[in-house]
Parts: sequence; structure tokens; C-alpha cells
Amino acid sequence: MRLASYLNTAFNGFPASSKLLIVFSLSGGGLVAYSESQSNSATNKTEIEQLVKKKKVVVLGTGWASTSFLKDLDISSYDVQVVSPRNYFAFTPLLPSVTCGTVEARSIVEPVRNIIQKKNGEIKFWEAECTKIDAANKKVFCRSAIDANLVGKNDFCLEFDYLVVATGAGVNTFNTPGVMEYCHFLKEVEDAQKIRTSVIDCFEKAILPELTDEERRTNLHFVIVGGGPTGVEFAAELHDFVHEDLVKLYPVVKDLVKITVIQSGDHILNTYDCRISDFAEQKFARDGIDVRTGCRVLSVTDKEVSMKVKSSGENVSIPHGMVVWSTGVSTRPVVKDFMDQIGQGKRKVLATDEWLRVKGCEDVYAIGDCATIDQRRIMEDIGAIFNAADKDKSGTLTVEEFQDIIDDILIRYPQVDLHLIDKKLSRVTDLLNDKKEVDIEGFKLALSQVDLQMKSLPATAQVAAQQGTYLSSCFNKRELAKTLPEGPRRFKSSGRHAFLPFRYKHFGSFAPLGGEQAAAELPGDWVSVGRSTQWLWYSVYASKQVSWRTRVLVVSDWTRRFIFGRDSSRI
Amino acid sequence: MRLASYLNTAFNGFPASSKLLIVFSLSGGGLVAYSESQSNSATNKTEIEQLVKKKKVVVLGTGWASTSFLKDLDISSYDVQVVSPRNYFAFTPLLPSVTCGTVEARSIVEPVRNIIQKKNGEIKFWEAECTKIDAANKKVFCRSAIDANLVGKNDFCLEFDYLVVATGAGVNTFNTPGVMEYCHFLKEVEDAQKIRTSVIDCFEKAILPELTDEERRTNLHFVIVGGGPTGVEFAAELHDFVHEDLVKLYPVVKDLVKITVIQSGDHILNTYDCRISDFAEQKFARDGIDVRTGCRVLSVTDKEVSMKVKSSGENVSIPHGMVVWSTGVSTRPVVKDFMDQIGQGKRKVLATDEWLRVKGCEDVYAIGDCATIDQRRIMEDIGAIFNAADKDKSGTLTVEEFQDIIDDILIRYPQVDLHLIDKKLSRVTDLLNDKKEVDIEGFKLALSQVDLQMKSLPATAQVAAQQGTYLSSCFNKRELAKTLPEGPRRFKSSGRHAFLPFRYKHFGSFAPLGGEQAAAELPGDWVSVGRSTQWLWYSVYASKQVSWRTRVLVVSDWTRRFIFGRDSSRI
Repeated sequence: MRLASYLNTAFNGFPASSKLLIVFSLSGGGLVAYSESQSNSATNKTEIEQLVKKKKVVVLGTGWASTSFLKDLDISSYDVQVVSPRNYFAFTPLLPSVTCGTVEARSIVEPVRNIIQKKNGEIKFWEAECTKIDAANKKVFCRSAIDANLVGKNDFCLEFDYLVVATGAGVNTFNTPGVMEYCHFLKEVEDAQKIRTSVIDCFEKAILPELTDEERRTNLHFVIVGGGPTGVEFAAELHDFVHEDLVKLYPVVKDLVKITVIQSGDHILNTYDCRISDFAEQKFARDGIDVRTGCRVLSVTDKEVSMKVKSSGENVSIPHGMVVWSTGVSTRPVVKDFMDQIGQGKRKVLATDEWLRVKGCEDVYAIGDCATIDQRRIMEDIGAIFNAADKDKSGTLTVEEFQDIIDDILIRYPQVDLHLIDKKLSRVTDLLNDKKEVDIEGFKLALSQVDLQMKSLPATAQVAAQQGTYLSSCFNKRELAKTLPEGPRRFKSSGRHAFLPFRYKHFGSFAPLGGEQAAAELPGDWVSVGRSTQWLWYSVYASKQVSWRTRVLVVSDWTRRFIFGRDSSRI
Repeated sequence: MRLASYLNTAFNGFPASSKLLIVFSLSGGGLVAYSESQSNSATNKTEIEQLVKKKKVVVLGTGWASTSFLKDLDISSYDVQVVSPRNYFAFTPLLPSVTCGTVEARSIVEPVRNIIQKKNGEIKFWEAECTKIDAANKKVFCRSAIDANLVGKNDFCLEFDYLVVATGAGVNTFNTPGVMEYCHFLKEVEDAQKIRTSVIDCFEKAILPELTDEERRTNLHFVIVGGGPTGVEFAAELHDFVHEDLVKLYPVVKDLVKITVIQSGDHILNTYDCRISDFAEQKFARDGIDVRTGCRVLSVTDKEVSMKVKSSGENVSIPHGMVVWSTGVSTRPVVKDFMDQIGQGKRKVLATDEWLRVKGCEDVYAIGDCATIDQRRIMEDIGAIFNAADKDKSGTLTVEEFQDIIDDILIRYPQVDLHLIDKKLSRVTDLLNDKKEVDIEGFKLALSQVDLQMKSLPATAQVAAQQGTYLSSCFNKRELAKTLPEGPRRFKSSGRHAFLPFRYKHFGSFAPLGGEQAAAELPGDWVSVGRSTQWLWYSVYASKQVSWRTRVLVVSDWTRRFIFGRDSSRI
């Protein structure tokens, strides 16, 4: 019975003739039936062989990276299983909007089973947490955290031929005492829902009789630690929520509300263009949001945040009603343990090569926030590149010889491109400084500055989604690439790499600042601020939704907010 | 400062001249300012007196009864405070729809502050639980359950002139072991949200690898205890959710799902017309929902429900994945304690008279599920009625004398009307059996059957809402009624009752049965079943929404469900 259902599933989508074969081989003597159907379809045998050989792919996670990978993956040659404690995909860039009810939590989530439904087969999904990756034996151990009262085993183990790690990252507390106990975070949908309830709690508590004004003021002091895009957007959303909706319902305490953003750097949004961070700081100053730059948080208690003011060196404590911690990401325990196994124990973040393969083990890939690409330095390979380019083995490289190899260099080492832009050079050969020929030392000198341009990618949805899509295209072309490799030439050995390395394309980033104002950093050094940018933000975020359902819901949430305001019920 | 703000609030909505007075009396010598403004407005003095005398009304609860009361209350002569642990009103008849995501939780709630916003003043709301009613000293003690990390006192005490108890009822477990620990309930919005998550948990667990089919079957066995409207509607919703949405996402386990309704009576929906319960039972039989009538649940554990089958007397245990307990209501502890204080300790439910005044104490009213009207028996007053009717003190009652008092009897004792309908009598005088005159014994005999028709009202939203509206109209007419009482004549003393007693008007009730089928019991012994009734249900429930916001949301949720189905994300 289970075999039948398995085969049935596996054959789902195959032509009618092959289904006939299955029916026969189950209902009577398999061999007779098989030879009967042989005449019917000559390819059946190879199809079965292919089925038997179908490689097992296990994917950990249901975030941006994982779902992009699964969406585009051709599963006719893979048997895919997905493990994640969340049975849905969440459109995380809208999480700050969920904290204040501008958008409802349900509007930004889509069941992962909907996303991974395929016409030509089934992707299996298990709602469970991966507790251990056993890279040597190609196994992952999982545990379901579902309601303990239900019957049946919670632990199971999956074998894989290929593993895709896309578990995302945890919260980085920088070991600050009290953060885990007393701060809110903004990584999961549940976090956003908790923040929403807490904001209402602060208001309901502050308005109670028998509180002093000082106590009301403390309860209505909202502190955000971290002046990055998430923290800033949350501060802006909260300000709008308070001033557009809550002041009408809690008029007595409206003048006691205060929002403070604590930033360790000198400016908020300091990864953005300075025009954007200036605009944001001015907007916040007008709104009365207190931005404290150059302050490092030392500890958090249920009542206070203490911090060191870098300029004066003094320690300051501020009472709070609620703290949202939004600073950077950290490695999850299961990934840390995996890193120890494969000799990456000393690193902070799991490292992959430019093809997103985890360094130090076979057939394991890592995408999204859980990993970082360890871009190869050109200086490490400089000798090999020189030898590969020096066709006549003359010991010197002519401009022509260099030109011959340039495309492969540009693909393999993206920092070269960045270096040319930085130095305002129009051609790669300009690196040779008008020399007609260089020896190895001259070549080293010409490229010596290039590696300074290496940048690690930010932990954003955009990067994760592109990595997922890239990896699925590699998986889809795996067989083809064996005969027709598309990658750059291998300098150390012969032949070419199977695939082009992953290359991130930045489509811009937004910083909504509240009051229908937003800032955007667009490709080509464009910066756009103001009301029209907020509308650009609306249209981009609506179009990027993962399904028509969520698109309709998000847009109707926005409309609802314009008409009726946000809901302040404490549920 | 606080006095100023208090007076300001109190005067909000008064004509400009009286505001002028306040400004003067705050800014300078009150007396001078007062005499100055005297010429300006002759009524100011009485207005101030009225203000000072404004009666304090405390309302406990934010359900149907309380919000209907508050919506229609004229607060120009009352200083109103509302205490409830929920800062929102929930449209509870849609709770079963929330359990499966047919309607979202947020769509059926409205912040109570929105509802109680008044043009001519302020109703104060405190998010807290009433922990004790001190009827003798006219005080209520309250405690806020908001996040303990916030600063300030959680306990406070409110004084009242009038108290309206509308705290609703609790869950009635009939002291069945294990119910509190292992059952879900359907009283609050949070309950419905928890059920939704649990249903998905059952599916996610059942589909995990390494479970036996028996274990999967157990996890997918949904048991509903109680075959009343709520239990039946939940069973129907769950069936639709499973068969319209979940089977597509969990095809492997779709044949293992089972829904069982356990009912102690002989039929489900046994408070309805038998045509409706027949229709419901047939519909459920077609749907494969197992209805077990005549079974009493003995205990519930995390794995099993054990019950006694009344017909055979044997005890049966059935394994389950999830149990929803939906049988009757019970009195909350704070109300129980209050009953002990006022000599109602031996009763099960708080009793009020027909004017909704709590029996055994002054100035306390109780409306909604927390109380029941203790309808006065006509036989208790029979002597007084006879004496009042016997104008000529002849010791006998003529038909004319009886006729003279009939209207007052019909108003005061609604059971008389029901008795006439039951006995198919067209006129009250028919009770006298064509006699021209009766003595006291004959009169007693004539009315002896009447009290058999007394019924207590069901614990429904419809009753609660009508009680709230009725009580607010009494509060609004309190001054007027002193000079112009509108109630029936007092038989035991002279004069009239101030108000007409509360009279419930039944507008019908619905029982949605899933698959776009519903049954309805409408006034005038009308019964309607089928698809058109479901559409009637949609239109009635949409029109009954408390605000335009929730109306739009509920309708758009229904539309969304038609187009995209229900969301199965576990959040």
C-alpha cells in the first residue's frame, strides 16, 4: 500500500503509458506486465532507472533562500524533502509593518506547501527542527516541536545526496546581559505579533488610575536598539501608529509618549548613502523621535537600558516600557555544530565558495543569512593565473595574452570590476599601466590593490532570494554542465568550472520613514526620498509578494489602514 | 492640573458659555468669575450642580451586553467607567469561523474605546479584571493583568452609585476530570486562535515520517463534546476546512481524518425545532461526521476521551488528537463571591428581577450570560392581584374587574401570554371558563397552570444585546420615570413600576452546517434550511457587525475564502 502510494506519487505527471505500467506491475506478476508494457513505451526502462537513481535533496528552512530555491527547482531528477519549524514562508520586509497592524500577520505569510506544489511530482515537507547535520554520513537529524500531547515519534533522520542549508540566522545580542530576557526582536512573525500586543499593553498600563505621571512616562517610553533599516522602519511605524491612531483612543497620555533609537555608530542607516541617513535623521528630529548615536548598550533589565555614551565615556541609564533589539545576526547552534565538524569551528559565519558550496565538505550548499561567501582573493591564485595566461611560456605576459584571459578573470574575481570602477579605469588592460609586457612581479603589482574591493554581501532578503534562484538553476543544469560547462576556466587545473559563480545584483533598498515618506537607494548611485518614494515602495512590495493571495491581502490591508486606521485590540 | 483636565473633560460638549465659566474659575478668583458669568448663562448653576451630582456608573465587561448598554447610554448625567480584561468587543457568533480561518480574528473584534467614544463626554476604560465586588460599600476592586515588567500599581478600587455586571460566563466542565487541562474551548478569541493552530499541528504531526497509520489516525481524530449550536458549527467549519483546503495540502493523510461529535442528549441541536436537528444529523451523516448521541463524557486525558453510552451502560474510550469542549456556561468566581455576599450563595446563577436588578442588593444590575432573570410566579402574587382587581372589595372578581387589570398582568407576567398561546385561547378572560364572577379560589384555579410556561432565556448574544439596550434606555429615562412611570401597576402597593420589565424578542437563530448549507429558526415557527439560508446567514451576520470596519473585513474575509481558500500557516 505504501509502496503503491509512493510510486504513484513519484510517477505523478508522467505520460499515461507509464502509469499503465505501474498499475500492471502492482496488480499482477510484475515481470509479465513489464514486458507487456515494453512495446508500449520504449523509454520506460530508462525512466524507471532514473527514478531509482533520483538524488535525494534535503533543504533546511522555509525562508527567502529556501523558497526561491524550491520554486524554480526542476524536481524530475530530484527527490526533495524540506525541513523547517515554520510551515509557512513569511515576507519578512513587511515585518515592521506587522508590529503596528499596518499589515496583518496573515497577509505576509504563505503556507510552504502551497509554494512547493509541483506539477511533476511532490516535494515533501516536515514541520520540524534540524537538530544535527551529520556531514560525514550524509544525514540530518530532525525533531518535531509540535504539541507533545499528540502520539507518535518526534525524532527522525533523513539521508541526503545533496543538502541545502538555509536555516537563516539568529539574533545577535553581542552577549549583552538581559537582552534575551527583556527585549523584543524582529526576526519572526511571532516577534512582530508580540510587539504589537506589548505596545498596546504599554498604553493600557499607562492609562490606569493610580499611576504617577512619571510611571506613565516610563511605560510609554519605547526604546529601539539598532539604527539599521529594521530598527528605523519600526521606529517610524510606531511613531505613525501612535500619532495617527493611538492618540485618538488614549488622548490623556498622548503627550507622555517617547520613542528613542539607540545607535552605536555615528549615524542611523549608516550602510546607506549619507543623503539617506541625513534625510532620515532630519525626519526623525521633526517627528520628535530621539536618536542617540554613538551609544553602546551595556545591559538591559525589565525597567532600564544602560548604555555607554562613547563621546563622554559616561554610563547612562534610561527607564523604558519596552525595548526592541534589532542589531545584526548570529549563527544558529545547529550550524555552529556543523561548522565544528567540517573544520570551520574558528569562523564566525559558515563559509561557502562562490558556487555556494560549503567549504570543507562535499555536496552541502548554504544560502541566505546562515552563510557568507568567502570570495577568493586574486592574489592567492596570481601565479596560476599568470601561468595559464602565459601561453608561450615566455615568462612574460603580453597585452594580447592578458586580454585572452580577462573575461575568465572578471567572472571568477568580481572584485576586479569594482577596482576598475573605483580607479575609474575603462579597460582591464589599463591595469598594466601602458606596459606592453609584464613579468610575474609586474603582474602582481598591477593587481595588488584589487582584493581591497572585496565586500561580503548584506544579510538581506534580496541576497537570499537571488542565491536560492541561482542554486536551483545550477541543480537544474547539473547533468548538462557535465558535458557543457558554462563557468570560467580553471586556472590551477585544466578545463572549466561547471557553473558561473554566484553574482549578486543589487536592485536597490528602501527605508520607509513614516508619514508616507520613504528613502530609497537605487542602482546606479540613485537616491530618492519623499512621498513618491513611499509609493514606489508600495508598488515594489506589492509586486514582490510570493502569491496572488498575499498580494491582494497586503494591498487591502494598506487600503483598510488608509480608511479605518490600525486596530488596537489586544489580541 | 488634574482637576482642570477633569473639569475640562466633564464639560466637553457643553455650550461655549459654560466653558467660559470654567476658564474663569480656574484662571482667577473663582467667585468673581462666577458672578461675572452668571449673567451670561442662567442655567450654569444647575449645570454645575448636576455635574457635581453626576452618578458614577461602573460597568464590568466588554461583551455583547456591556457594549449594547454603553452604545446607547446618554452619558450627560452619568460618569461612566468600564472595567474588562479585554480591551475589545468580539463578535462571538463568528468565533467558530475564526477556528478555521474562514474569518480572521481581527475582523471580528473592535477596540472598545472606539465603540464607547461619545460626543458629549468621555467613558473611561480600564483594561483590568474585577477581583471583588463590595456591594455593601458600593466599591469594586480591580487588578490589571498587563505585563508585570511595566511600572506602577496594578490594583485599584472604583466607587459606584450604580454597578452593571456584564462579565459573561465561564466554561462549564461539569467537574469532568481532565477537561481544563486537555480540552479547547470556544468562548474567547484566543480560544479560537489556539484551535486553529492545534488543527494544523495535528496535520503536521500526522504527516511526519516514522508514524504508524494508527498513530496518524489518532492525531487526526477531532472530538467535539457538546452538540449545541457552537459545537455543531465548529464541526461543520472543521469539516469544510479539512475537505476544501487541507486535503489538497496533506493528500497523503486525507483518508485518515475523522470528526466525532459527542452529545449527551438524543439529538444534536436539541434546543432547536426537530426539523432542524433532523436536517443537521442527515447532513453530518452524509459528510461522514460521526455523531454519538446519548453519551456522557466521564473524563478526558491527553490521549483519550472516555464516556458512558447511556443506552448500553458501557464505558467507551476513544483516542483523539484534539478535543473541543462546548457544553453550557458556568458562573465566574467574582460573581460567585458576590452572590455569597448578597444571600444568593445557594443559587447556581446570579438572579435578577425582570428589571435586570440583582436580587438582594441595591443599585446593582446584571445583564448577559452572567445572570438569569428570576421571573416572578403569578401564584406568588395571586392574592395581591385579586385584591387590587377587586375594586368594590366584594370578595369576588367580575369579568369587567378582571379585564381592567389584564394589561398590567400581561406586562408583569409574560407567562400568561405563553399560556394562552399554548392553550389556544384567544382572550385572557377565556381563562375564567365562561364564568361571570370568581372568588379567590376560582381565580387561583384559573391561573394555576400559567406558571408552567415560565422559561429562562438562553445564554446568547441576542439576549445579552437586548438586555444592554433595554438597561441603557432605563438609565436614560431615570429622571423622567420618577414623574412619569411607564411600568405596570404595582399590585402589592400603590402606584406603578418606573419601567416596563425587560421582554426578550426572538429574531431567530442560525445553525451553519458547512458546505454552504445552514438551518435557521425564524420567528413565527418558521424553519428554513439549505443554501439560501446560508446566504441569509451571511447577510444577517454582515449587517449585525458592530462597525463599518469589521463589516468590510468580515465580508472581504468571506470573499477571500471563496477565491483563495483558507490559510493553513501555523501562526
